[in-house]
Amino acid sequence: MAAIAAARDGSFRALNEASLVEYVRATPVIRELLGGGSEIGELSIMEVGDGNLNFVYIVVGPFGSVVIKQALPYIRCVGESWPMTKDRAYFEMLALKEQGRYCPGHVPEVYHFDRIMSLIAMRYLKPPHIILRKGLIAGIEYPLLAEHMSDFMAKTLFFTSLLYHSTTEHRRAVAEFCGNVELCRLTEQVVFSDPYKMAPHNRWTSPYLDEDAQAIREDDILKLEVAGLKSMFCERAQALIHGDLHTGSIMVTSDSTQVIDPEFAFYGPMGFDIGAFLGNLILGFFAQDGHANEDSNREQYKNWILKTVEDTWNLFHKKFISHWNEHKDGSGEAYPSPIYSKAELLQQVQSIYLEDLFHDSLGFGAAKMIRRIVGIAHVEDLESITDTSRRAHCERRALEFAKTLLKERRQFRTIEEVTAAALASV
Amino acid sequence: MAAIAAARDGSFRALNEASLVEYVRATPVIRELLGGGSEIGELSIMEVGDGNLNFVYIVVGPFGSVVIKQALPYIRCVGESWPMTKDRAYFEMLALKEQGRYCPGHVPEVYHFDRIMSLIAMRYLKPPHIILRKGLIAGIEYPLLAEHMSDFMAKTLFFTSLLYHSTTEHRRAVAEFCGNVELCRLTEQVVFSDPYKMAPHNRWTSPYLDEDAQAIREDDILKLEVAGLKSMFCERAQALIHGDLHTGSIMVTSDSTQVIDPEFAFYGPMGFDIGAFLGNLILGFFAQDGHANEDSNREQYKNWILKTVEDTWNLFHKKFISHWNEHKDGSGEAYPSPIYSKAELLQQVQSIYLEDLFHDSLGFGAAKMIRRIVGIAHVEDLESITDTSRRAHCERRALEFAKTLLKERRQFRTIEEVTAAALASV
Repeated sequence: MAAIAAARDGSFRALNEASLVEYVRATPVIRELLGGGSEIGELSIMEVGDGNLNFVYIVVGPFGSVVIKQALPYIRCVGESWPMTKDRAYFEMLALKEQGRYCPGHVPEVYHFDRIMSLIAMRYLKPPHIILRKGLIAGIEYPLLAEHMSDFMAKTLFFTSLLYHSTTEHRRAVAEFCGNVELCRLTEQVVFSDPYKMAPHNRWTSPYLDEDAQAIREDDILKLEVAGLKSMFCERAQALIHGDLHTGSIMVTSDSTQVIDPEFAFYGPMGFDIGAFLGNLILGFFAQDGHANEDSNREQYKNWILKTVEDTWNLFHKKFISHWNEHKDGSGEAYPSPIYSKAELLQQVQSIYLEDLFHDSLGFGAAKMIRRIVGIAHVEDLESITDTSRRAHCERRALEFAKTLLKERRQFRTIEEVTAAALASV
Repeated sequence: MAAIAAARDGSFRALNEASLVEYVRATPVIRELLGGGSEIGELSIMEVGDGNLNFVYIVVGPFGSVVIKQALPYIRCVGESWPMTKDRAYFEMLALKEQGRYCPGHVPEVYHFDRIMSLIAMRYLKPPHIILRKGLIAGIEYPLLAEHMSDFMAKTLFFTSLLYHSTTEHRRAVAEFCGNVELCRLTEQVVFSDPYKMAPHNRWTSPYLDEDAQAIREDDILKLEVAGLKSMFCERAQALIHGDLHTGSIMVTSDSTQVIDPEFAFYGPMGFDIGAFLGNLILGFFAQDGHANEDSNREQYKNWILKTVEDTWNLFHKKFISHWNEHKDGSGEAYPSPIYSKAELLQQVQSIYLEDLFHDSLGFGAAKMIRRIVGIAHVEDLESITDTSRRAHCERRALEFAKTLLKERRQFRTIEEVTAAALASV
């Protein structure tokens, strides 16, 4: 009963499997989900947190199941030497609820939140759900992925922007998510700063990429472009963004796509989410040559990934404009209809908005690719290539492509030009 | 004692000259300033609020003086039919203190703040201080104006930006000023929306400018540009801006320049402040032909205004860069020195930053000019030209120049190109 007592007297206690059982039994809403009455019988508990930050438990009872996620006051993969506010659980819960409101089909339901314990109980995404990144490594095609992710991004970004919000709602929400500053700072450091300097946690496939990593640290044009993106990340409250929308934050089956882990959520630039997703798909694309074997050269799969990149952006574009048209006379205050109602003018406005967003997305996507190759946190797509020289080969191609994309993103007019350039780079 | 009692029991009461005396006598810090002991003798009280929003009293006692400003829960110039949060006084006080911290020479000191009464007691800017706008109408040159205003803007904008702030400080301050949303909304409406549609409070010098006003409402390119500026105003938390930095918010003598009335303050784009000041100077320039008479053709004065526009930007540029260089290894997190320390790279970064800021300033300045000619709130520079046709002539020239500036601002490379264009437009 230690953990419960701790929670009751207002102090945090990290749970383990034993104390979690006590917590579950003492929390009516969870108890109800798992087994009904006051006696819920045998519980199966499994810790499955494979991310960098938190502890995640799957709890299965006689009549139901739940995932319980607890944030500890440090970064799990580094340890207590890197403190990190456990209040991130609060912002994760807020974001899950807000995203779930606009896109319930692709966001797990929140059942219970305990702020003192930094604990969220949410829907368990049962097998065969797996982390998308693992599916990409295994070469599995997800025919609905682009449809679902474009849906998630178009809805969560549009409906939390000034295209739908009044400025009153917007500033209130912006102010609240300003509280998630520690997580924003983590991104600022590991995405926009560390890869461009000598930083203690940086790593890369050495010695193969030593010169490539050095070239990044000495590339003035790259640094100029990254500075612009960082300013946008820090200053521009365009919409409620997930903040960490890589392929490890998405769980999939052949017909379900669920976006999890929005603890980095805040009001930031939309392109940061779109870029994270597309950039990580492209990283998966560049990793395929490292996974090719005699059974499969992965050529068809590479095409599927690039097709998914294209479809995601094109469907996003279509759906975003469609939400806009549907709500153009609504409460959104960016483009009041008495001023922008003329069809031709509205089309021009939309075209400029989406073109800027496209270039922002390419920039952020490229920055996310670079940091996964020469920064602190790498991706399993590449890490799982055991032949070091082969891995370095894939990484170098990805890095060169990302550098070009970051520096020359404004030259790209369509997503097909981007995928063609990726294809030409392998 | 009604007002005092009201304040003590936690409710707001609008003061008048009689109840103000009671308030002053019951408030030790003000009583002390005016006259020393508990008996402060005869007080002279004068209501001088000539702005659109508030009541402002000058209170003079035997040993000192003070200005007392009270915000009422509506817009003074419209009346109770246009409610407006009196909490603006809180944000005005916060901004005065923050600006005063970085630039004490050009901001009146705050002596006392009463949140319940929405009341600020601050330094009385004694005669010969007058509102700058009135000086411009009278044709008075202020040789230190550019020096002082560049100082105010460089300091208040630099030291509240991410060039000086950590992102932790920045997001905390951004969140706080999100509370000033009602005042931001007023700007959004009267600057970025109303002039571009038929709005009930719009007015212009009719019938002379009927077609000009209509042309504004039908100019798609103008509307596209204004939409971009509005988005920046609503989304970009670049620095703590004054938010209403026109020539009516500045009090001057030949050797003193004091910036008052920052009740519209929030974290927004720096260019909004710079543009407000320069745009209002340029409005003053275009009004001069309406004030020319047989005593003075105002030609020399017009040159002085344009020279002040040039000097303000050029000095601002120099001082802003100088603050940046001085603090480049400090706590500001936009451009961490381990990445941007190389002199050549830092210069490139600064050059891009200031070029963008220049174009933002021209855009916002132009938008502020337009709204003063066809929107709700006009400027005395033009309103005081009694010959309607002559006034319309000045206004049309100003309007045409502002439209060009807004649409083609990115073509201007130097402020001298801007003043040359203004000179060519009269």
